[in-house]
Amino acid sequence: MLSKKIVKYIQSLNHKKLRNEENRFIAEGPKIVEDLLLAGFCCAFLCATKDWFTQNKNICENISEENIFETHETDLKKISLLKTPNKVVAVFEKKNDDKPIQFENKLSLMLDEIQDPGNMGTIIRIADWFGIENIICSENCADCYNPKVVQATMGSIARVKVHYTSLISFIGKNKSICVYAATLDGVPLSQLKKINEGIILIGNESKGINNELLNMATQKITIPKYGNAESLNAAIATGIILSNITAPAITEI
Amino acid sequence: MLSKKIVKYIQSLNHKKLRNEENRFIAEGPKIVEDLLLAGFCCAFLCATKDWFTQNKNICENISEENIFETHETDLKKISLLKTPNKVVAVFEKKNDDKPIQFENKLSLMLDEIQDPGNMGTIIRIADWFGIENIICSENCADCYNPKVVQATMGSIARVKVHYTSLISFIGKNKSICVYAATLDGVPLSQLKKINEGIILIGNESKGINNELLNMATQKITIPKYGNAESLNAAIATGIILSNITAPAITEI
Repeated sequence: MLSKKIVKYIQSLNHKKLRNEENRFIAEGPKIVEDLLLAGFCCAFLCATKDWFTQNKNICENISEENIFETHETDLKKISLLKTPNKVVAVFEKKNDDKPIQFENKLSLMLDEIQDPGNMGTIIRIADWFGIENIICSENCADCYNPKVVQATMGSIARVKVHYTSLISFIGKNKSICVYAATLDGVPLSQLKKINEGIILIGNESKGINNELLNMATQKITIPKYGNAESLNAAIATGIILSNITAPAITEI
Repeated sequence: MLSKKIVKYIQSLNHKKLRNEENRFIAEGPKIVEDLLLAGFCCAFLCATKDWFTQNKNICENISEENIFETHETDLKKISLLKTPNKVVAVFEKKNDDKPIQFENKLSLMLDEIQDPGNMGTIIRIADWFGIENIICSENCADCYNPKVVQATMGSIARVKVHYTSLISFIGKNKSICVYAATLDGVPLSQLKKINEGIILIGNESKGINNELLNMATQKITIPKYGNAESLNAAIATGIILSNITAPAITEI
């Protein structure tokens, strides 16, 4: 049985302010919770059904017993944000990594004001698929620890590092790094060679990339269009660009 | 001032059963409504702010006056599904196109049980970007006239034809068409040549493609993975596959 205090505490972490104060976040569902535990995230509370614990004893070894709660599905409903709670809800400590980001021989992502939590989470999942380790976000991007973002990452939040900073001053300080900005009027992906190092910059869902930031980019790149849609969703564009840049497209073999 | 009867009627079209009975659907926001009007969709009701009408007189010429309502934002709120109504809400007749689908010299999409309305709408938008004219959907896919789907298409619902049918019997009847099934264990996109004709088959968000259907496919294809995410979102996969297939990827130039 979960105490009212714990239920209230977990619910409070739906708010960014509280997540920041506590330095913690909520994760739900077997896949995501297991990925976070396996990646060594410190678990502050774990509430799960008997069924889940039976199958996952081994990955709970490092959690102290007083923070583990065998929970009936009715109780899970109280703390779950999903329509149908999915066996396990947990609270994790954020990982604070202050080491400087490495850019040598790798691609990184930069997001300017991605606001939709679903897009944010999906972009983190795409980054993980393409082996991107770091995402540098403007301070007005959706919080990567927002439960909806965590959910949309499908566990990739456990493996991809998300940094929040002023992008303009960041690029200003890292002038040697090539920044490829996704726009509607750049060099078509089909004309690009494979890119092994640099930053792919993706802009806001409706406004695109901030002008000042765009002026600092090394090159503007564009997804070739064959039809009539005015634009593509920001997460879709990220997926297509990464797929083409890691193995570039050509017009005809 | 909108009558209660009209408000109730428009709200009723949030339900698939009523949309099917009436053969109509709701669209919201300048971009989507304008795209539908320009594509010749028949508009049954148009409710918009004075501001919108001032700017769009010319595209309303074919709507009879008794079906046009200059609406205050407070009234728009009653019929809008958006958090903040966006100038115009309209009801359109569905376009019923019984002509046989043409497959020669073009790519088409096939969707097996895509359930999330956001994914469905985003896939229609992607299809439109890549010039795909037809999407063949299993009967248990999300309804393309669901207001959330229409919203996510960002107007592309006006240009892409979406058909619902039994996919198994459809492929059975069209044996000459190549079907490329998106799976996790097929031929990497990087090894494929450009494909000019055929169907790209995308499966359900969690279950993938139905086994019987998968067995009928000509070839299984896969997006190369460089990291650790278990899978990609169905809409992201669609975007990446279409982008690569319309201009195939190679490992190194």
